[in-house]
Amino acid sequence: MKIEKTTLTVAQHPTGVDLAIPVITLTGTEPGPKVYIQANLHGAEVQGNAVIHHLLEAFKANPPRGQITLVPLANPIGINHKNGEFTLGRFDPVTGVNWNRQYHFDGSELAGFVAEHQEQSDEAIRDAFRQRLTAQLDQRLDSPWGLTVGQHLCLRLQRMAVEADIVLDLHTGPVSGRHLYVPRYARERARDFNIPLNILMPSEFGGALDEASFSPWWQLAERFASQGRELPVFVDSFTLELGSQEYLNVADARRDALGVLNYLQHSHRSAPWGALWADSPFQSEPVTRHACELEDYRAYYSPNGGQVEYLAPLEQLLKAGEPLARLWHFDRLAETDEAGLCDTLTLPCDAIPVLHFASASVQRGTELYKLLTNTFEL
Amino acid sequence: MKIEKTTLTVAQHPTGVDLAIPVITLTGTEPGPKVYIQANLHGAEVQGNAVIHHLLEAFKANPPRGQITLVPLANPIGINHKNGEFTLGRFDPVTGVNWNRQYHFDGSELAGFVAEHQEQSDEAIRDAFRQRLTAQLDQRLDSPWGLTVGQHLCLRLQRMAVEADIVLDLHTGPVSGRHLYVPRYARERARDFNIPLNILMPSEFGGALDEASFSPWWQLAERFASQGRELPVFVDSFTLELGSQEYLNVADARRDALGVLNYLQHSHRSAPWGALWADSPFQSEPVTRHACELEDYRAYYSPNGGQVEYLAPLEQLLKAGEPLARLWHFDRLAETDEAGLCDTLTLPCDAIPVLHFASASVQRGTELYKLLTNTFEL
Amino acid sequence: MKIEKTTLTVAQHPTGVDLAIPVITLTGTEPGPKVYIQANLHGAEVQGNAVIHHLLEAFKANPPRGQITLVPLANPIGINHKNGEFTLGRFDPVTGVNWNRQYHFDGSELAGFVAEHQEQSDEAIRDAFRQRLTAQLDQRLDSPWGLTVGQHLCLRLQRMAVEADIVLDLHTGPVSGRHLYVPRYARERARDFNIPLNILMPSEFGGALDEASFSPWWQLAERFASQGRELPVFVDSFTLELGSQEYLNVADARRDALGVLNYLQHSHRSAPWGALWADSPFQSEPVTRHACELEDYRAYYSPNGGQVEYLAPLEQLLKAGEPLARLWHFDRLAETDEAGLCDTLTLPCDAIPVLHFASASVQRGTELYKLLTNTFEL
Amino acid sequence: MKIEKTTLTVAQHPTGVDLAIPVITLTGTEPGPKVYIQANLHGAEVQGNAVIHHLLEAFKANPPRGQITLVPLANPIGINHKNGEFTLGRFDPVTGVNWNRQYHFDGSELAGFVAEHQEQSDEAIRDAFRQRLTAQLDQRLDSPWGLTVGQHLCLRLQRMAVEADIVLDLHTGPVSGRHLYVPRYARERARDFNIPLNILMPSEFGGALDEASFSPWWQLAERFASQGRELPVFVDSFTLELGSQEYLNVADARRDALGVLNYLQHSHRSAPWGALWADSPFQSEPVTRHACELEDYRAYYSPNGGQVEYLAPLEQLLKAGEPLARLWHFDRLAETDEAGLCDTLTLPCDAIPVLHFASASVQRGTELYKLLTNTFEL
Repeated sequence: MKIEKTTLTVAQHPTGVDLAIPVITLTGTEPGPKVYIQANLHGAEVQGNAVIHHLLEAFKANPPRGQITLVPLANPIGINHKNGEFTLGRFDPVTGVNWNRQYHFDGSELAGFVAEHQEQSDEAIRDAFRQRLTAQLDQRLDSPWGLTVGQHLCLRLQRMAVEADIVLDLHTGPVSGRHLYVPRYARERARDFNIPLNILMPSEFGGALDEASFSPWWQLAERFASQGRELPVFVDSFTLELGSQEYLNVADARRDALGVLNYLQHSHRSAPWGALWADSPFQSEPVTRHACELEDYRAYYSPNGGQVEYLAPLEQLLKAGEPLARLWHFDRLAETDEAGLCDTLTLPCDAIPVLHFASASVQRGTELYKLLTNTFEL
Repeated sequence: MKIEKTTLTVAQHPTGVDLAIPVITLTGTEPGPKVYIQANLHGAEVQGNAVIHHLLEAFKANPPRGQITLVPLANPIGINHKNGEFTLGRFDPVTGVNWNRQYHFDGSELAGFVAEHQEQSDEAIRDAFRQRLTAQLDQRLDSPWGLTVGQHLCLRLQRMAVEADIVLDLHTGPVSGRHLYVPRYARERARDFNIPLNILMPSEFGGALDEASFSPWWQLAERFASQGRELPVFVDSFTLELGSQEYLNVADARRDALGVLNYLQHSHRSAPWGALWADSPFQSEPVTRHACELEDYRAYYSPNGGQVEYLAPLEQLLKAGEPLARLWHFDRLAETDEAGLCDTLTLPCDAIPVLHFASASVQRGTELYKLLTNTFEL
Repeated sequence: MKIEKTTLTVAQHPTGVDLAIPVITLTGTEPGPKVYIQANLHGAEVQGNAVIHHLLEAFKANPPRGQITLVPLANPIGINHKNGEFTLGRFDPVTGVNWNRQYHFDGSELAGFVAEHQEQSDEAIRDAFRQRLTAQLDQRLDSPWGLTVGQHLCLRLQRMAVEADIVLDLHTGPVSGRHLYVPRYARERARDFNIPLNILMPSEFGGALDEASFSPWWQLAERFASQGRELPVFVDSFTLELGSQEYLNVADARRDALGVLNYLQHSHRSAPWGALWADSPFQSEPVTRHACELEDYRAYYSPNGGQVEYLAPLEQLLKAGEPLARLWHFDRLAETDEAGLCDTLTLPCDAIPVLHFASASVQRGTELYKLLTNTFEL
Repeated sequence: MKIEKTTLTVAQHPTGVDLAIPVITLTGTEPGPKVYIQANLHGAEVQGNAVIHHLLEAFKANPPRGQITLVPLANPIGINHKNGEFTLGRFDPVTGVNWNRQYHFDGSELAGFVAEHQEQSDEAIRDAFRQRLTAQLDQRLDSPWGLTVGQHLCLRLQRMAVEADIVLDLHTGPVSGRHLYVPRYARERARDFNIPLNILMPSEFGGALDEASFSPWWQLAERFASQGRELPVFVDSFTLELGSQEYLNVADARRDALGVLNYLQHSHRSAPWGALWADSPFQSEPVTRHACELEDYRAYYSPNGGQVEYLAPLEQLLKAGEPLARLWHFDRLAETDEAGLCDTLTLPCDAIPVLHFASASVQRGTELYKLLTNTFEL
């Protein structure tokens, strides 16, 4: 296995400083699938870097076939941007646009592509379609009108990811349990990550890297399917949410790395690519997996301003009407209506809390919790 | 004419402070069209408040028929939010979502509505559709899961706007010439605003108030048209961009108020509503109007980081290749390659600069200018 | 005991919204000392509000003599200001000035005051000096040039505090153990708070409320002492740091309230004011108390940029050379020098960690830890 | 003349990116004074970079004796930090500390130094004192506890400035006329800058670069003077405020460069250093210069929240009671008390407006204007 380390410039500051990301490429001695893994696109979500550290060690100890690209610290603008002590890294501080909504997919060429490639083999379609996606990205990167700050970053990341059969984007929530965004077609394979909470995604594109990676291939397969031809979805892509932001624990990241390795060593069994290893060298601890559809992944917004005690534990079923959070109104201390001092917030249905807001002070309308509803075991 | 002044609570701070907006309702002694005008939804865009001040004076002096609702200071969260000296008011500082992308329209009920109302009169359709839109908003405002901070604000504003025949949203650009977003069907009437630069909009909905106000009615008319029935678009809606942000000049706002009044006094000639005045009491100074389609309204992004001299004057045609801006790299002072000290930026085609970025320091990818291309006179 | 609840306007937003603070005044049936307690001057430091809640309950159950003023949510500007999810509440977002450095004390009148009051009784001096301090504040509040945003807030809070014999300011650290700032003359009384970590303060004034409350009286006593007259320091003032910011746990706050009550019920034994209660109704759990001088309360700044694992537990002695934190440089993954991947940071001397930075990403120069050095038991 | 260009690393981001500043050193063929000039320490104050550009051209055309150090883009952290469109560059976004309050001077060694060097020549004192100051900086830079982010930057800048006889710090105001901070002993020489507004500074140290450069030498001279020995102040240092922030106009900067060159070519006539040029090659246009003492340089704070029309022109005398600004309360539109809609703000005394706030929206307490009072011609 050959290990190459390069850097890729993705941004330039007003003072002329170039911001670059590290790109590590592992090339096996035998051919095999291509895998792309990035971490820390949102600036405060650091734990994925530690997972990449463990993955690199594991790949060194058990060299895979094929090619693996690892990109830690994927967003130097977001990681380096502070307001107060915390990292303000979810969105471009100039425009407000979420860093993970700036990837590209233009579906308008799909119909034409399908018409042109009706008669070709699965493999020829795969190669031609990847070439098409690559060309779309290269064309955008070359626009005479320029690109936004976020596109300069995201399209360069996507340009690497588009070459891969497997794309993993390592994020975290605010204060959060581990959860996984799963494209519905890959739900069986997704079990191997051993992540307790799972959200099943449809084929639509909303700008995120996982969607930008799977939507084109999935929509291609859907179009062929509507014409009676069964084409595999040639790419798997997942967003992993590995706990809480602003939290680094390298020892703890080993568990998550083993889940990723477990998925990697087994995915070829049901997917249209080969094995990364001849055997299955990694052991990941099984967990009970709960899941729901994306439309059942609900946010609960604070009905009033106040200061919050987050009561409902994460990753555990909360029954309808059980206390979710307590919202304190200390401005009402010593008022005659003692009942007004705090509200106990509850939900209209059973749900499993996935994450909650990171601050104790909330406005009316703050997203307090996100929760799985209508859950089932995966 | 009756003048009522109320306030409407649109937000609540963690400390329990309620944020309210002023709502002024002018009710004529005779029936007539309903008009809704708001200003300062983006926090730094203050000049519209001064326009509303002049409009109120004009309405007092020349009482209109029908009903006029005026909402200055429409977004107290955005107006009151500072980072450094400037008002950070384009997006929710917690989520990054643009305040003017949080209005509501769900087109999925359109087909059913058209089917149900095929046989009815224009007026009956109009009234039923408005009722439908109103009910949609009321239902969302009543969600047991709550609303985002932006929805609490925007849906309450929209709840007032949905009652109106004419909806005007008063904004400004960063450093900007006056420009107007015009739904294509209203391009003739738009001339009366006497705004020099105009962008013609399609019927799609992207979350802004103008779109949320005209898209439903326009798409309704399109659907009826596709079935051979010509239905008027019952609502006009425009976004006015009245110069630069962070700038208040009350005397100067009089000109813009007269443009609005000129539109208001003439619109009934070609639109499905009555006259606001029996005569035409207002004089607005005519201007030459340039326009382009929305897809030809282009942004030019800085190709590098640096510090900028903005060279191209606003509102004037810039030929392809003429200097747009000069980008200085003072980090290269005293380097042997003197040519590297600054780049002169140019465009690939003729264009009329509409606005430019407000800061002298830019990253690679900063939106430097927005420009009309493929322009024509309106 | 009479309970009064009022509000005091301390700020006004650009939209005209008044920001007010709740002020609760408890007046005993018998005369006694005056106590002023505020919380949440720094926006993210919410836990003190819960302590005030428990104090109010305790005062209702055991009505004190004298007068108690309680001000929760003391800084509505700071509490309500968000950038990203977190509360940016340590400094004015326009000017950068720390909210707790804007109180007033001008020592230039001290010499003259001492000269004028040489012959008077302790009580006469106390009353005249309080009158002088009050007049200074009133004069500043009345300046024809206006006041800064922070002075509008702080001088109004101080105007209430200046009337009190005991002033308590309830704060928290970022990620923090409980600690107490103690004016050196009150070190014996300070033991009753039962707070494990203590910092002994000199008589200088740096702009904070505790200093603004004790420095004038202490410097007055020092000046009289230099002339051979022993005058008591007539005011006690402490800043309590009650754990971590962005954290509300009302049950947990009961312990801190009991510490405050324990100090309140015992302070009269050694201080120049009477008892708040005839007996000692409250039980606070004793703890081992470590302390150091303010000049030995050291900050350790990150020697490089990177991502951090905070290793040293808070409130426990760390020996010189033992690991304080691990600083990861994930940009160096896959580089040949494996040793460069992380630095283990250590200190040049023994220390007790008091608090650490709240984010996992740090620049070169970020304050990583604050620590007691040269500690002793209090 | 030899021109050297180097870079100096002053900061490191969490991702490991080094931030460096350009340092240009011009060394004349003949000995002469040392000059240090920096620009853009506050991130939004860019115009000084263009002045340095012109200075470099002038020095190339007229090579000076001695040594000149030029540092454009002096604060890459501040210049590169955005919140919204504008550059938030006046203070560290993590701590709030003004970037120009983090220089070092510890006067506690002065008495000892004077005692030790009583008998020495002026030159020997000068050299020994410079060595002392340099050693103080080197010791701080080497602290085992580390330095703050701002100290890493400022102490490295100061380490260069401490070597110079003349130190110029190029800033701008928010929306501002040109003005100059002048140490009182250098008021005659200051006339040569041809800057219309001037503020005379005392010898105290408040943390800024100009003070850090002149205070030690001035206080040294004061101490010797108090012992009857007249020692020159060996260093001149000025802060130039060159108009408004966020504004770059390279042509316009030529005038300011000529003012600087005029000062440089004449300063040796009354100062204890030699001539930079044998003749006086530069022509600067004379202006009328107004001045006041620092204590008479007053800020006027907004008495209420609202939106502002800035009425008083900069650099011109405003009589007491004449309109300074108009503060609009658009929330009061349509209220019965029409008088409440706006306040006209005036001053209690004659004043020359120097600068005003950069935003149209202000809180109660916003610094609206800064003004010279009790002015005289310089």
